[in-house]
Amino acid sequence: MTRVSYDAHLKRVLGLSARLAAALGQETVPLTSAYGRVSATEITAPEDLPLFANSQMDGFAVGPGVTCGSTLPVIGDIPAGQALDGPLPPGTAARIMTGAAVPEGAAAVVPVEWTDVPAGPVPLPEHVTVRDVPAEHRDPDGSLAAGTYVRPRGDDVPAGATLVRAGERLSARHVGTLGSLGLAQVQVRRRPRLAVLSTGSELVPPGSPRAAGQIWESNSAMLAALAAGTGDVEAGPVVAAVHDTPAAVAGAVDELTGHADVLLTSGGVSAGAFDETKAVLRQRDGMWFGSVAMQPGGPQGAGLVPVAQPAGADDPEDGSDHRGDGSHGRNDAGREALVLALPGNPVSAAVSFEAFVRPALAALHGRAFRRRLRSLPAAEGFGSPAGKLQFARVRLHDDAVYRLGGPGSHLVAHLASADALALVPPEVTAVAPGDRLECWELEDRG
Amino acid sequence: MTRVSYDAHLKRVLGLSARLAAALGQETVPLTSAYGRVSATEITAPEDLPLFANSQMDGFAVGPGVTCGSTLPVIGDIPAGQALDGPLPPGTAARIMTGAAVPEGAAAVVPVEWTDVPAGPVPLPEHVTVRDVPAEHRDPDGSLAAGTYVRPRGDDVPAGATLVRAGERLSARHVGTLGSLGLAQVQVRRRPRLAVLSTGSELVPPGSPRAAGQIWESNSAMLAALAAGTGDVEAGPVVAAVHDTPAAVAGAVDELTGHADVLLTSGGVSAGAFDETKAVLRQRDGMWFGSVAMQPGGPQGAGLVPVAQPAGADDPEDGSDHRGDGSHGRNDAGREALVLALPGNPVSAAVSFEAFVRPALAALHGRAFRRRLRSLPAAEGFGSPAGKLQFARVRLHDDAVYRLGGPGSHLVAHLASADALALVPPEVTAVAPGDRLECWELEDRG
Repeated sequence: MTRVSYDAHLKRVLGLSARLAAALGQETVPLTSAYGRVSATEITAPEDLPLFANSQMDGFAVGPGVTCGSTLPVIGDIPAGQALDGPLPPGTAARIMTGAAVPEGAAAVVPVEWTDVPAGPVPLPEHVTVRDVPAEHRDPDGSLAAGTYVRPRGDDVPAGATLVRAGERLSARHVGTLGSLGLAQVQVRRRPRLAVLSTGSELVPPGSPRAAGQIWESNSAMLAALAAGTGDVEAGPVVAAVHDTPAAVAGAVDELTGHADVLLTSGGVSAGAFDETKAVLRQRDGMWFGSVAMQPGGPQGAGLVPVAQPAGADDPEDGSDHRGDGSHGRNDAGREALVLALPGNPVSAAVSFEAFVRPALAALHGRAFRRRLRSLPAAEGFGSPAGKLQFARVRLHDDAVYRLGGPGSHLVAHLASADALALVPPEVTAVAPGDRLECWELEDRG
Repeated sequence: MTRVSYDAHLKRVLGLSARLAAALGQETVPLTSAYGRVSATEITAPEDLPLFANSQMDGFAVGPGVTCGSTLPVIGDIPAGQALDGPLPPGTAARIMTGAAVPEGAAAVVPVEWTDVPAGPVPLPEHVTVRDVPAEHRDPDGSLAAGTYVRPRGDDVPAGATLVRAGERLSARHVGTLGSLGLAQVQVRRRPRLAVLSTGSELVPPGSPRAAGQIWESNSAMLAALAAGTGDVEAGPVVAAVHDTPAAVAGAVDELTGHADVLLTSGGVSAGAFDETKAVLRQRDGMWFGSVAMQPGGPQGAGLVPVAQPAGADDPEDGSDHRGDGSHGRNDAGREALVLALPGNPVSAAVSFEAFVRPALAALHGRAFRRRLRSLPAAEGFGSPAGKLQFARVRLHDDAVYRLGGPGSHLVAHLASADALALVPPEVTAVAPGDRLECWELEDRG
């Protein structure tokens, strides 16, 4: 069996993902649905923010030359959202609320606390007297400094400034910023639809009858949850516990790639006598299978496979699972799906997801992938297999790395309680206490 | 206006949340929908995992006393998912796949690589000869050590072991573990339905016509996105840009609390002449308003308010927005909603979400809230207001804290590019370079 390094297989997976990303394309969504999506373009500010000079305080807009003791006639109210009808006449004041437009002719805002007018909802006074101008707000001649408590136009974001880069994921705070600039729609990368297929004749879905020698199927729910947690996919069909026969596996692969852009399979990729997933998939153009020098997760498969034209694809009634743009299930001529074939052991499948699937899903959006990395010393020593990159399940505590359980790939309980994977390079066969280990913090929201 | 510390207001908000949590209760969901939910109970293993001793390798199950050179008749195949019909007869071998049940009478598994049989899908051989028993797998008498490559029953999880604690959020890896133990359903905390109301006569939804002095409304989309990112809520109605009139605000509050467990409002909580949200809400039983000694985000309101009985509540046709259990919209007698009234400035609203709403949503699930904390030195010095806990928008880089922009609460662009909030305690008025700052990493997925 072909044996490749972790880096080589990751590079293969990322290359396949980049090819599919180009085919996935983009779409326009309302800002209210844009959270977590990846911007397809650079987004720049269409206007200044704020668009007009405005008040930083509840108070009075005044012209130049106001000093402590000045009394000015109050010519009107400027609540937030309204503008004075014309410039502020010289020698007058206008009551102004925080955020309201500072009128032409005004030089500064006197906070209500510096005046003889009470704060809060009181009737508009006829006059206002300035009782206090703190020293730090005075010009050399003693008058209120121009610009005091006035926030200039464009102070926050000047028109044309970059708000979001192409390939950047939109945070809730980005949504706020884009909304502040009046952007009602965003051009985003189309999210791939992701399907999951778990194979193995020994598997029984939880809740179903189970015979001697059979085990509960759990990878399909776990992989679907891991994928959902990335925010990078639309949920597609999940098929659990397909029997390891060529016809069953081939049928499921055709069905699922017909309705998804990405198919994760688990199981049937080793060299055993009954590993039909690999046997079926390796007959498809574009699939690679081999052994990656890592533990757990060694046997892997990956490829872009042509999508089978589904039966009834030209039936106009059969639209339930299809996107409006026709990219799924019909007009599929030439479409390819990314198939990532993961090992069936639950811990191997979970580690494979972190090692390959998570970066692939970012690459499908043209998004730079950044892991949460920590470099921390090992609390205790342990061995590691020669020639394999080990992904040890660990907990990070007091800035040290604590390994959970042994190297066996079957310890799902330890996987669940891990909060990071610690990487032991292939050339290292023994980790000593204090040796620094690169750790990937596990990102899902447990 | 009442002035309280950050800790005092947080304690108030958490207390209100705990009271509402008791009323929210729990529900049963299928395991495939359990990701991200909070377990209402401790979950223990209902059986041993694995439930039966099984093989760690593809190979041959053999009885005791096998040595290098032993030749044994092969009496059958044990694929994964099947069991041998009866015990393994003494002096024989059975071909066994990884994960398959090791039969009674077998003492160990000889990996196929140690035998004269080729690996992979070959016909069942009549005999197998052991060609190699590595020294580390030999007993003192030279025979294959009992237990070699046999994974004992219960090795991963013994029946009765705790898998998930009450109040723990279910990660994808938990989903995998629970599935491995055959658990098809999980008892979880009911998620609160969360509504958002943004008030202010100056606000216009992006994409609508805008008059002089008006600004784009962005808090509703931002707060809804922040809430969605927590995974702790069901999305409820979002109402943007309600005018600051008592009737409009009161109507919106009644409507939204009628369809939600939690209502976030933004705007109208200061002491200005037009702050109607506060004026309306402070008339409701249970609402507190005051000033929290923090910057930004000082003016805050919080309370559990009785839900108005909606018109037509007894109309059996009117079920669209109601939960099956009747807890929303009908049979609301005595129900309360948690209202958190946040300031309207976008940066203040976002900081208030991190400071109060995020911990409140955890408390609504009875879940311990853990922030991602870093304690890092300031790269540069800056000032901080006396008597207020400052939440500075910062970037963490090379293990140091870099402040973005100034203290003004209007800088939404800096908020969007921040990756953490650095906390400057109320008694600190000047941060010097090198001073350690507690930082909250911002969690949303930008």
